[in-house]
Amino acid sequence: MHAYRSHTCTELNAAHVGQEVRLSGWVHRVRDHGGVLFLDLRDHYGITQVIADADSPAFAELETVRAEWVIRIEGRVKARDASLVNPKLATGEIEVYATGMSVLGAADELPLPVFGETDYPEETRLTYRFLDLRREKLHQNMMLRSNVVRSLRNRMWGAGFNEFQTPIITASSPEGARDFLVPSRLHPGKFYALPQAPQQFKQLIMVAGFDRYFQIAPCFRDEDPRADRSPTDFYQLDIEMSFVEQEDVFAAVQPVIQGLFEEFGQGKRVDADWPRIAYRDAMLWYGSDKPDLRNPIKMQVVSEHFAGSGFAIFAKLLENEGTEIRAIPAPTGGSRKFCDRMNAFAQQQGLPGMGYIFWRKGDDGAMEAAGPLAKNIGPERTEAIRQQLGLGEGDAAFFLGGKPESFEAVAGRARTEIGRELGLTEENCFKFAWIVDFPMYEKDDEGKIDFSHNPFSMPQGGMEALEGDPLKVHAYQYDLACNGYELISGGIRNHKPEIMFKAFELAGYPKEEVEKRFGGMVKAFRYGAPPHGGCAAGIDRIVMLLADEANIREVIMFPMNQRAEDLLMGAPSEPTNEQLRELRLRVVPKD
Amino acid sequence: MHAYRSHTCTELNAAHVGQEVRLSGWVHRVRDHGGVLFLDLRDHYGITQVIADADSPAFAELETVRAEWVIRIEGRVKARDASLVNPKLATGEIEVYATGMSVLGAADELPLPVFGETDYPEETRLTYRFLDLRREKLHQNMMLRSNVVRSLRNRMWGAGFNEFQTPIITASSPEGARDFLVPSRLHPGKFYALPQAPQQFKQLIMVAGFDRYFQIAPCFRDEDPRADRSPTDFYQLDIEMSFVEQEDVFAAVQPVIQGLFEEFGQGKRVDADWPRIAYRDAMLWYGSDKPDLRNPIKMQVVSEHFAGSGFAIFAKLLENEGTEIRAIPAPTGGSRKFCDRMNAFAQQQGLPGMGYIFWRKGDDGAMEAAGPLAKNIGPERTEAIRQQLGLGEGDAAFFLGGKPESFEAVAGRARTEIGRELGLTEENCFKFAWIVDFPMYEKDDEGKIDFSHNPFSMPQGGMEALEGDPLKVHAYQYDLACNGYELISGGIRNHKPEIMFKAFELAGYPKEEVEKRFGGMVKAFRYGAPPHGGCAAGIDRIVMLLADEANIREVIMFPMNQRAEDLLMGAPSEPTNEQLRELRLRVVPKD
Repeated sequence: MHAYRSHTCTELNAAHVGQEVRLSGWVHRVRDHGGVLFLDLRDHYGITQVIADADSPAFAELETVRAEWVIRIEGRVKARDASLVNPKLATGEIEVYATGMSVLGAADELPLPVFGETDYPEETRLTYRFLDLRREKLHQNMMLRSNVVRSLRNRMWGAGFNEFQTPIITASSPEGARDFLVPSRLHPGKFYALPQAPQQFKQLIMVAGFDRYFQIAPCFRDEDPRADRSPTDFYQLDIEMSFVEQEDVFAAVQPVIQGLFEEFGQGKRVDADWPRIAYRDAMLWYGSDKPDLRNPIKMQVVSEHFAGSGFAIFAKLLENEGTEIRAIPAPTGGSRKFCDRMNAFAQQQGLPGMGYIFWRKGDDGAMEAAGPLAKNIGPERTEAIRQQLGLGEGDAAFFLGGKPESFEAVAGRARTEIGRELGLTEENCFKFAWIVDFPMYEKDDEGKIDFSHNPFSMPQGGMEALEGDPLKVHAYQYDLACNGYELISGGIRNHKPEIMFKAFELAGYPKEEVEKRFGGMVKAFRYGAPPHGGCAAGIDRIVMLLADEANIREVIMFPMNQRAEDLLMGAPSEPTNEQLRELRLRVVPKD
Repeated sequence: MHAYRSHTCTELNAAHVGQEVRLSGWVHRVRDHGGVLFLDLRDHYGITQVIADADSPAFAELETVRAEWVIRIEGRVKARDASLVNPKLATGEIEVYATGMSVLGAADELPLPVFGETDYPEETRLTYRFLDLRREKLHQNMMLRSNVVRSLRNRMWGAGFNEFQTPIITASSPEGARDFLVPSRLHPGKFYALPQAPQQFKQLIMVAGFDRYFQIAPCFRDEDPRADRSPTDFYQLDIEMSFVEQEDVFAAVQPVIQGLFEEFGQGKRVDADWPRIAYRDAMLWYGSDKPDLRNPIKMQVVSEHFAGSGFAIFAKLLENEGTEIRAIPAPTGGSRKFCDRMNAFAQQQGLPGMGYIFWRKGDDGAMEAAGPLAKNIGPERTEAIRQQLGLGEGDAAFFLGGKPESFEAVAGRARTEIGRELGLTEENCFKFAWIVDFPMYEKDDEGKIDFSHNPFSMPQGGMEALEGDPLKVHAYQYDLACNGYELISGGIRNHKPEIMFKAFELAGYPKEEVEKRFGGMVKAFRYGAPPHGGCAAGIDRIVMLLADEANIREVIMFPMNQRAEDLLMGAPSEPTNEQLRELRLRVVPKD
């Protein structure tokens, strides 16, 4: 018999009754029922109930074990009484009567229990991550993650992509976030950087003549702490293709992601219709460039009904250039109580408030419009609004005005809140949309033109488009939104050096600067670059969605805490003087 | 029709004759045959011949293209004349008569050609890696690597292992080589480290209750340059299993590796018999702990035949304790010329020389022993040696003496040389052996006891063994040797804190030091650790063996040069003052 086990803790069933077996695992739980010990033995695969009574030679020793000891059991498989069969357990038909026992690994008093899913402070959970990971939910999350990554790989291979590893110790390439630097010992005073993404390498792979690349790639960003992201590194499914247009990328990606969600979505419906929504429309309709389409609410421009109306605030507002009034329709939201609550929500979000109208049954039995706005603008305009929004008795609408940039985000959050509160947002489904036509440039706070997203994307219209107003240029740049999250971001790349230099010039980067920052890639584009494009999907985010977890640390095996510390391994830590000397570095004392 | 291609450059054949098609790719080669242009268009998948004559509207433009331009061709598929069919090419039955052409990406004058496999200085190849990678051999190597990794993953999953990603930004954990450090911006003065291997994490994963882990894991070591290894990072297939003994690991690994070599070995025979060879025996028989078993030569101890013999050098040597005389049998090596050449080889390797005896047909037609040693020790001893070694007429034997440590390595190299020179070493096969029973400790140069390999391995005999002579303790530590290379290294781990502390104490590390260095793991072992073990296989090395490449840079997409510089991306480089300030670091000027 094997030194540790003849079976795993999930294998034994009625067919094994009478067999002598050996099992190893963790003591999940022990109960002493007056001279009979019941012990749940747990391994990676499952749980088996072990029993021993005073007749068992293992009884005395078994009485000494405590939770989370690792033990080996010899015993005989016995059928449980029909009344004691546990249908929830793979091994629920049997129990193992222990005849022998050895301790393989004892355990000190536990700083947090494994049995049960009691909430514990995150600090404790991360310090004793090896115990935390033994808990059922986290164990499941890790297995889910492993299976998701496996499935993604198989799907990508199945679609004709090849996985290539790109360097992790490489050059600094400022792409927006901060690089992690790695001092070089062989070249003191010089530093490597960890890649923020394999962006340049995957483009180089295309220039090198490989057609369809993917990688489950680690990415490193020295970011300031935020609850929903890892402060140091994360994984992305990185994809790049040659000789493609935007729709080719979509056609390659959709079956992979849709199939993945169907496989791991636990029965939630996965929409097969993935609309393309222009960035501007997404902001107008949903107040977000990662809209949650499970929420049916679609905002509309209703400026015309307020221009010159008796509602002076909006009427005046509209006299300024670039202003709009937008309505958030709220079907079934037609009560003052609800409208006031939403108004309060908008105030919490930093707005002066949201005007509203709601439609109710009047005292005369006919529908009437209520709310302060209705009074101010009068019945005709009110009715025109109702008709435009397709609302009726029992419904409401909220109104926001100003320059869209100033209220779009809040409008989006209000839309989410309204959909949730009214139960309009569909549950148990995943809805996707490609957000397209992102603006290439935006004005930064100082009024300077800068890239709004990825500087490597091809401007729609090419060189010609760059000769006009930069703020009107769209990029071949796209995101995949799912249930309110951005799952994927990508673009068709700018593979023509002259267009690339021009694009950077508009954002204030002279040619020399581009050569210096992205030298390898710019050089490559001069030696026969194919048109290419791709995208990257956040693995952590996908697993969070599938596991229904809000905290990224629930889907990472050994996460940092929010102060970017590894509490288990003790990182970061002070270097030795010898290490600093070899790197020719000195730490500057805090002043 | 698709914007760039209706077909790839490998798809068209006789069945497509007459079709209008569109192809995109690189200009592999252009030949002008007096008014008819022949152009080989290449993409990731293959090559298609394009032709144009003066009647073609694309002719004038096609005359301007040069090698490695990326172009798009519109044309009509034509059958080639039977005499011009190229059976070596998937598209060899057809050619495409060009009717239209556009340049997608022009190319400057090439610093190295893609067509042909002309040798170029490594500096040029690495600086223009994107061109180098377009060459056939390197393209194949990268595809081989991608497929090898894919196959390894599938085989591991098939064997019930789960892949988990472990942290890359983590704690310094001195395991022999130097860590790469990563300064922390949020905790100035403190540093993370990149993992030399996921050793501690994979053991923690076992303690966390996952049963069978693997990962294609990046590993980072700040090593001094050496031709056959990457100076910064490499990939390993990292494996760990719970509730196993050494033979369980072997049983899990052999099908994976053997299957991989059968899949990608290009018809070379893959031996299914993987002997277990004790470290001591490997050193004695093969002069190496990674023996090449394709070479049938097995060395033997022949001390008894030299003790008290007339060959004074060896006879005297044997009076010292711990000395031995060993023979390298050399079947078919029985000529003075060959023996002298091997003797000279030994001298090149720093030895005074190798004594030898060879057996030839004497003037009387009978076999006679020749060579200086034979004379010195006389016919009886010479004959006894011949019989022990099983040699005959036409064969030779070489002799080395002293303390085994002083000549074992040279003996091993001589064995290799002899096998090669005499054509004894089998070609076109892969032969494996598990090297087991490595010593746990060795004496370092100063006579101090230190770990000879992995300090985390379980000593054979456990705590009891550690009470005796440390130098006699074997570890549950093993390597897989293949054709003279170490492919895999692993061990059954020491999962008991008290044995671990004792093992470290013998090597001069007090308990506090162990707690400090390996705190996370030691802590984990106190809370119910299962017996576990595993191994790690070098991916780069496996691909090198399968691709028959001697230089690691031929199997890595974007390798560093030997000075640990990335010539394409320009790493390492000087940080900005801003970056140093944020990290609170100062570079110490060279004195």
